[in-house]
Amino acid sequence: MHNQITQSNIRILKFGGTSVSDFDKISTVANYLKERTENNEKLVVVVSAMGKTTDDLMRNVSSISSTPKESALAMLLTTGEQQTISYLSIILHDLHVASIAMTGSQAGIRTKGHYLKSKITEINDQKLIENFKSHDVIIIAGFQGINEQDEITTLGRGGSDTTAVALAAALSAPCEIYTDVTGVFGTDPRIYPETRHIDELSFEEMMELSSLGSGVLETRSVEIARNYNIPIYLGKTLSNERGTWIMPKDQILEKKAVTGVALDNDMEYVTLSYPMNDTKLLNQLFDELEQEEVNIDMISQIVNLDGLQISFTMKDTDKLQIERIFNRLSTNYPAISHQSRSTYAKLSVIGSGMRDMSGVASKVFKSLIHNEIPFYQVTTSEISISYVIDKENGEHAVQSLCKVFNI
Amino acid sequence: MHNQITQSNIRILKFGGTSVSDFDKISTVANYLKERTENNEKLVVVVSAMGKTTDDLMRNVSSISSTPKESALAMLLTTGEQQTISYLSIILHDLHVASIAMTGSQAGIRTKGHYLKSKITEINDQKLIENFKSHDVIIIAGFQGINEQDEITTLGRGGSDTTAVALAAALSAPCEIYTDVTGVFGTDPRIYPETRHIDELSFEEMMELSSLGSGVLETRSVEIARNYNIPIYLGKTLSNERGTWIMPKDQILEKKAVTGVALDNDMEYVTLSYPMNDTKLLNQLFDELEQEEVNIDMISQIVNLDGLQISFTMKDTDKLQIERIFNRLSTNYPAISHQSRSTYAKLSVIGSGMRDMSGVASKVFKSLIHNEIPFYQVTTSEISISYVIDKENGEHAVQSLCKVFNI
Repeated sequence: MHNQITQSNIRILKFGGTSVSDFDKISTVANYLKERTENNEKLVVVVSAMGKTTDDLMRNVSSISSTPKESALAMLLTTGEQQTISYLSIILHDLHVASIAMTGSQAGIRTKGHYLKSKITEINDQKLIENFKSHDVIIIAGFQGINEQDEITTLGRGGSDTTAVALAAALSAPCEIYTDVTGVFGTDPRIYPETRHIDELSFEEMMELSSLGSGVLETRSVEIARNYNIPIYLGKTLSNERGTWIMPKDQILEKKAVTGVALDNDMEYVTLSYPMNDTKLLNQLFDELEQEEVNIDMISQIVNLDGLQISFTMKDTDKLQIERIFNRLSTNYPAISHQSRSTYAKLSVIGSGMRDMSGVASKVFKSLIHNEIPFYQVTTSEISISYVIDKENGEHAVQSLCKVFNI
Repeated sequence: MHNQITQSNIRILKFGGTSVSDFDKISTVANYLKERTENNEKLVVVVSAMGKTTDDLMRNVSSISSTPKESALAMLLTTGEQQTISYLSIILHDLHVASIAMTGSQAGIRTKGHYLKSKITEINDQKLIENFKSHDVIIIAGFQGINEQDEITTLGRGGSDTTAVALAAALSAPCEIYTDVTGVFGTDPRIYPETRHIDELSFEEMMELSSLGSGVLETRSVEIARNYNIPIYLGKTLSNERGTWIMPKDQILEKKAVTGVALDNDMEYVTLSYPMNDTKLLNQLFDELEQEEVNIDMISQIVNLDGLQISFTMKDTDKLQIERIFNRLSTNYPAISHQSRSTYAKLSVIGSGMRDMSGVASKVFKSLIHNEIPFYQVTTSEISISYVIDKENGEHAVQSLCKVFNI
């Protein structure tokens, strides 16, 4: 992506599926955009598919195939966003706002990788800048792009956010992401209703929160924002309530030891056993994981007289890929066995001030022990500590830690 | 379009909306395509949107705008075909048929003209030929293309047929168009159930039949087929009943004086009056008609002491354009008045042998007079005679003429 263009009145806005779930809502968004253009702003607006459109399409596909061809599935799913951008453009036109709707292909959003979870490699920013000469609003279909063979691809989970942030990076403009929640809270309010709103958050903290199950914004989006130093505002659609700014760490005034507590229930705990230590097997395993684009974390490995045992955690959405990998490994290593468990959860305590302030780990350990919550694995990073615990203890653990750290 | 490629096993097949109206039907089509590929054929398959998809999208649009922005409407409507090609490709994949689905944009179907009734100017045949190296079936979204600005366009009425025939022309391959009727009949069987099936028809006869309200195949498609000498087969989807071949006139063995009788009820009779003869006014009128792409025929003009009166017939779907034109004419010529009537129909007798065999016109006149059916305007071409009559007399007139000519 190129960074040369700085047009100070450009803003990137993204509205998620619930913000455009029916024509009344699209119309409300359109009126809001009109106000913003009257304020002399040039807007790039990224939208998702309307409400349950993607689910409907997926249900249709399930009725015809259990393992749908991925390239065709990507082509199908992208029609959802293409419909939203068309409707929004029709309504803006009737409001006398000059807009142009563009698919991922038209906006030159180039991707690489698997059809259904591609990554953006390039955006035709010149075409966008050119379009601003005659339009105040450029509407972009989120979640989609085209690969080197001009095939349609989707960006996977949270893809429309990635589209928005990548556009912001390409145009060096701030990014506002609107959903049905008022930004980021210290933890999931459904688990701990007293949780406090976070006004400012560093990219790094947000990345940890995202990857650890908070679900407000996918890691990939925040990663791009951090790499290009693009501030992101997370707000509630058409609300005056204060949202959350995600920004560089050094611009945040008050650094807390612990900013948030996250719980990831969508996790799979996989254990692989082989009667002897074999590095070739491990090599093939990691090659396959990379090829299938399975992200694993919290790896532990035991080698003893019983042979080799390796355990790791991963998103439970990647189960299919893991099955494929083990089938292939079994061909070369018939004695291999594996076990996959969904009964665990990952509990994480995140805070960019954690490193400078001692005692966080100690407080967490004490709290878990005091509440009789066993943990099976622990990992630490610069700004987080994570524990594998039993799923059934997850909510209780979050509540206890929120009280301890005043989250 | 280029004509260099002749790969004798390439076939272009087109399936209309009723042939792909649900997943069972798409599946049946897919199985048929598999059989054809096992017969060593390489297939380009053009499909329309599923059943009522386009109507559903139009209904959505009506609920948000009375004059929807045309570029956005084109973008919206094309999602229907994009969904069909995705589903078909998923099903073919599960049947182990190597297929690739392509939107109009991906197939390089370039268009010019108005967003909602564009004409195809070019097709990327090299890309198609290239794709045949690794695929047996190339599925193309009908009805759509992209213009010079890379904007999505639709081809207007019968657009998927045009896509199929243009592809056939680009690849110099025969074209098979499948619908829910068994090819062409001498007249509409709903009006005259005893009508005879036509096995062979010249391009010219089909063009007259199309333009005069027969509705099996749009004129534009037949025109392309004639220009590139591409035979078209019109058949019933997955039926063994014999369809109709449309081919060069000189290849048809038995030439009949009259091949068919057509009735066009979707016709508007427009009369324009101005108190003096003014050629500038006429110039502006015809310029405007060209710009708005309104096709008119059966023009008559009277100039007398009362001034100028010009009448013409046109498709009633172009009413909106005509209103716009008259509004603009009124600015320059306030004394202009116009009248638009929907009470007339156009009755036509068509036959490529008509010219060589005398007495056709005389027989038609006698039949109309005998049945007491008044007519208001008559035009003749090489292979047809057309009459403006009252709509209420249409069916009776068709039945009488079918009996006279044994249609």
